[in-house]
Amino acid sequence: MYKYSFICDYSEGAHPSVAQALVDLSFEQNSGYNYDKHCANAANMVRDLIKRPDADVYFMPGGTPTNTISIAASLKAFEAVIAPSTGHIEIHETGAIEATGHKIISVDNCPDGKLTADIVRRVVGGFEDEHTVVRKMVFLTNPTESGSIYYKEELEAIRKVCDENDMYMYVDGARLGGAITAEGNDVTMEDLGRLCDIFYIGGTKNGALMAEALIINNPAIKKDFRFHIKQRGALTAKGFALGAQFEALLKDNLYFKMADHSNKCAQKMAKVIRELGYKFDVESPTNQIFPILPKPMIEELSQMYEYYVWAPHSETHSVIRLVCSWATDEAKVDEFIEDFKALHAKYNA
Amino acid sequence: MYKYSFICDYSEGAHPSVAQALVDLSFEQNSGYNYDKHCANAANMVRDLIKRPDADVYFMPGGTPTNTISIAASLKAFEAVIAPSTGHIEIHETGAIEATGHKIISVDNCPDGKLTADIVRRVVGGFEDEHTVVRKMVFLTNPTESGSIYYKEELEAIRKVCDENDMYMYVDGARLGGAITAEGNDVTMEDLGRLCDIFYIGGTKNGALMAEALIINNPAIKKDFRFHIKQRGALTAKGFALGAQFEALLKDNLYFKMADHSNKCAQKMAKVIRELGYKFDVESPTNQIFPILPKPMIEELSQMYEYYVWAPHSETHSVIRLVCSWATDEAKVDEFIEDFKALHAKYNA
Amino acid sequence: MYKYSFICDYSEGAHPSVAQALVDLSFEQNSGYNYDKHCANAANMVRDLIKRPDADVYFMPGGTPTNTISIAASLKAFEAVIAPSTGHIEIHETGAIEATGHKIISVDNCPDGKLTADIVRRVVGGFEDEHTVVRKMVFLTNPTESGSIYYKEELEAIRKVCDENDMYMYVDGARLGGAITAEGNDVTMEDLGRLCDIFYIGGTKNGALMAEALIINNPAIKKDFRFHIKQRGALTAKGFALGAQFEALLKDNLYFKMADHSNKCAQKMAKVIRELGYKFDVESPTNQIFPILPKPMIEELSQMYEYYVWAPHSETHSVIRLVCSWATDEAKVDEFIEDFKALHAKYNA
Amino acid sequence: MYKYSFICDYSEGAHPSVAQALVDLSFEQNSGYNYDKHCANAANMVRDLIKRPDADVYFMPGGTPTNTISIAASLKAFEAVIAPSTGHIEIHETGAIEATGHKIISVDNCPDGKLTADIVRRVVGGFEDEHTVVRKMVFLTNPTESGSIYYKEELEAIRKVCDENDMYMYVDGARLGGAITAEGNDVTMEDLGRLCDIFYIGGTKNGALMAEALIINNPAIKKDFRFHIKQRGALTAKGFALGAQFEALLKDNLYFKMADHSNKCAQKMAKVIRELGYKFDVESPTNQIFPILPKPMIEELSQMYEYYVWAPHSETHSVIRLVCSWATDEAKVDEFIEDFKALHAKYNA
Repeated sequence: MYKYSFICDYSEGAHPSVAQALVDLSFEQNSGYNYDKHCANAANMVRDLIKRPDADVYFMPGGTPTNTISIAASLKAFEAVIAPSTGHIEIHETGAIEATGHKIISVDNCPDGKLTADIVRRVVGGFEDEHTVVRKMVFLTNPTESGSIYYKEELEAIRKVCDENDMYMYVDGARLGGAITAEGNDVTMEDLGRLCDIFYIGGTKNGALMAEALIINNPAIKKDFRFHIKQRGALTAKGFALGAQFEALLKDNLYFKMADHSNKCAQKMAKVIRELGYKFDVESPTNQIFPILPKPMIEELSQMYEYYVWAPHSETHSVIRLVCSWATDEAKVDEFIEDFKALHAKYNA
Repeated sequence: MYKYSFICDYSEGAHPSVAQALVDLSFEQNSGYNYDKHCANAANMVRDLIKRPDADVYFMPGGTPTNTISIAASLKAFEAVIAPSTGHIEIHETGAIEATGHKIISVDNCPDGKLTADIVRRVVGGFEDEHTVVRKMVFLTNPTESGSIYYKEELEAIRKVCDENDMYMYVDGARLGGAITAEGNDVTMEDLGRLCDIFYIGGTKNGALMAEALIINNPAIKKDFRFHIKQRGALTAKGFALGAQFEALLKDNLYFKMADHSNKCAQKMAKVIRELGYKFDVESPTNQIFPILPKPMIEELSQMYEYYVWAPHSETHSVIRLVCSWATDEAKVDEFIEDFKALHAKYNA
Repeated sequence: MYKYSFICDYSEGAHPSVAQALVDLSFEQNSGYNYDKHCANAANMVRDLIKRPDADVYFMPGGTPTNTISIAASLKAFEAVIAPSTGHIEIHETGAIEATGHKIISVDNCPDGKLTADIVRRVVGGFEDEHTVVRKMVFLTNPTESGSIYYKEELEAIRKVCDENDMYMYVDGARLGGAITAEGNDVTMEDLGRLCDIFYIGGTKNGALMAEALIINNPAIKKDFRFHIKQRGALTAKGFALGAQFEALLKDNLYFKMADHSNKCAQKMAKVIRELGYKFDVESPTNQIFPILPKPMIEELSQMYEYYVWAPHSETHSVIRLVCSWATDEAKVDEFIEDFKALHAKYNA
Repeated sequence: MYKYSFICDYSEGAHPSVAQALVDLSFEQNSGYNYDKHCANAANMVRDLIKRPDADVYFMPGGTPTNTISIAASLKAFEAVIAPSTGHIEIHETGAIEATGHKIISVDNCPDGKLTADIVRRVVGGFEDEHTVVRKMVFLTNPTESGSIYYKEELEAIRKVCDENDMYMYVDGARLGGAITAEGNDVTMEDLGRLCDIFYIGGTKNGALMAEALIINNPAIKKDFRFHIKQRGALTAKGFALGAQFEALLKDNLYFKMADHSNKCAQKMAKVIRELGYKFDVESPTNQIFPILPKPMIEELSQMYEYYVWAPHSETHSVIRLVCSWATDEAKVDEFIEDFKALHAKYNA
């Protein structure tokens, strides 16, 4: 029997405007490999958004190749990237970074899954000779894997450590729209354009079918970047289909409207769950929430909805993950809330 | 000024039926990473087509990752793949295979760009100790980069050499539909299913937006293959969009109808060019043709149409490449023919 | 001015018996690449020592290539090795393992720098799909980087976890002689032969000039191993010089006599330091000791002897490392002890 | 029964002077990892020899790691090296270069196994976009695998092509002494110092036990080179043993005296074989010669001496390889000559 899914934000296809943009390409002739007017136009829209007219912008078919190529192209053989132990590259990309020859310096116990300037400074310190890898890049995800977001002063402090140590700052923005539209966020797209050497705006998890916009500000990374994209298999023949998706995403602010919708749906559920007295594994203001629930309740709830049991918590409780997307039906959110309240009442009768 | 393009077969977007399949996904919830009903259904359609109910079928986002992952997943560190020196992996993938650690044994002077059983036997012979790579895979493209096709007895002879030497046979089918529907072809999809350890049916160059169907018959290669796809960045989050494209491609024989159209358009031009007395660099019965033309004529023709000047031929002549696709407008083909005839007359007045 | 060095155990050349074995090779003709009588003979001596007549034995020119090749040859692309965060491969090989494409799962806070069965079990648990690397090998160093040793029941417990999870157990024995001859040790060479899938007996840090003996028990790793050695640059042309070193090392128990001497020298210093009331960073019964000393005392001592200031400890104290070798002059050890006592008296007057 | 061997030039151990230098190290304390006085002194001797006071000099434990690290450290991920199809890196290093991610552009039919400026210019030409690897390095071996040598004007012409195309010139000098001392040679060590971006002077095949001297002139390659050596496993703990070998090799011209001896022994045999009417596969003035002999004669000769049957030649004849070394006994050469003459007489009676 079909159950409504809060499994992830890539369960549905493209937003209708994005899908229509793909339909419109059928009989239009374009140059291949991203040398087309859609990519050119979408790149300009990105540059406007982040206020970096000098940025190089590439459209990529997915998050893992974007992370892998960004890191591998930036680093020399003996250079490494620092990431939280919960980072996507560390635990959910099957060793893709290492497969290109580079070490990830994995850091345990990052607060809310976030690297801090102090952590980075500690990890960098004291490694200086040819027996160790050189710490050359900091990998951040905003929002993090657990839905938390970076604040401006945190990013600026990390930028400072990067500057002091000749390191690159890279932001994995698979769900970047969610961070920017989160309640309490004070980071702008322009800030990212100003602070990052390289970062990407994720499309696939926010209304695209498959497309990410990668932005390179640092000239050292810009050089020869297309060779890396091609060598690592992400130079898309019909690249215009990636550009066209981003034209649609960035038109009339659609990208941020969708992210805002995803956040609001998730936070609506979070509010009720919190009010009923449940705790959360992480405080997330974005489209992923991580309530801690009693196991029998999880079991019964999973008869009605699809979601992940995310992590063990105690003998009696587990953490679950609920995710909303651009396509989440608000009526289903309300339905979920009613069902949840009923379950709560039953278990607390 | 806009000129009609015979540059390549990935200039246009998806066939309308394929595009519609993508539109239909917008509000449908599916599992991610190819664990969905569209991939399952399309995989079954592929298995039926090649008469291999036991085959593993994966849907990939592009040709280069398909080649790279297929080869890297099949080979141990010290094993190599044999390819013609004109093979795509050897000259047009920026060292993607070597970037995964594997040598390509490149063979010069393959007749019509095709490996033969004799060539393979010669290349394999006599290498046997730990100072040399082990020849473990044969890489064929059908049709080849120059549009020529393999005949059944050629494939069977190569299969035999592979069997004798414990080697894998891999067919890059980026334009496979064109080979199958070419005049004179005697190879069936079922033959490929029978002969190959691993091969792929290219979608991107024949009516898909971006999708290839990779087929694995050999159990040794099947094992753990999804790990390789993920590690190399080609496990698509919205994988259902790849499966849905192939459902549309394989429905009602659309895939082969499109390939047939591409071939016919190209051959219609070839026939006229040949009749006017021009030679071809390679005899191609498929959708790419390689006429040898006088340089001034090439120059003038390029004012009217877009195409590649492919290779130098002599002081006075060059080889050009003309490519037709599923979307090629037959009226434009006729127009080209008239223009070509007029140019011919002018230069032979 | 020359100062006696307790910097490391590779400061001096080869033991005279080993050096003489090299001299004896000058005019003797042998086959290259380890296909010679010295390698064959030394391999048999190793097999006898560990009671594994079925073992494959290779002689390698150094520790880093031995670790790198052992791990890279054992693992498939998506498989990883678990190591303590203080492991040599994690922090002192410049990303050599990752440069072959493999992730190291680094584990913080291992007691005495040792992996335990419980730790391994925890790290292995719950990772099971293609988004994560497969945990396939456990990397132990005996003695560890901090001089501590594994006890038999610890190794047997780890072996059990490996068996339960289809994992390989690898022991880096760069200083293995020191573990075997340490006071309190209950592990025999035969135990290692029985428990390890693959391990090595380090020569370079115990009287050889440059030579390690790598032992492979697991048939899955044995296969084609010479190809890996050659590809990774460690198949030595004059391999007989490696075999000859091990013939000399293993003759008349010289290897263990030297290790015992190294341990005794270090422990003689440790005993005095301890009796004078100083603490140690790690309890090491082998040839490396890590006393915690007041900074001014360290400063003054370093005017007389060479050694590493190993790690910060507090505002007033640091950890130093003192290492003895097969060549350490016992008279110098006594001199050091007298100098140390005098310094202690001065600072505690 | 023992037979005298002309198999290769690494059958014997070290020259007695080199062996004595190793013995002298036994009780001397030195810093590890090439930071010692022997390496420093030997490096200065190398700089004097090539008249490049600015060169960086590293001592490496073998030829394959030297080639691999030199190439991998010089190239970016998408850059390739051009080599003759008979080059050591192409056919006798088990894909070591590709294992670091780099393509070798292999060139067939090089005259006498030598790349020429024209060949390099042709191979470089016309590759310019991100679908192809960038040609960045030329790999020469002097003398070549077949014993032939490069003349000064040939090297200068290749240097010119490298300059025109922003490419590096690398010379594998595994047997460099043999080229320099060959009859007819006009290339000096100073010429190599002037022309090469990077090259090495091979010790292992000319009197060392295991040691090569790698010289880097180009600042772009110098940077961070020690990190590459360590990561690829060739930073030798007792590096002073490598430096000490080169001190002995370069003292009193020993290196070139040994090479001259090797050449003279081989050429003495070649002269007789030629005078008796036999042809050679390649004209080699160095210590490897490749006579073409009737198969029955090869068979009978191999009862008396060890050597390789190198390649098939015709139905009745094969090519054999005879190699002399620094240790070749001239009395054995004379014996071989007498035996060969007798065989010749028998087969031509």
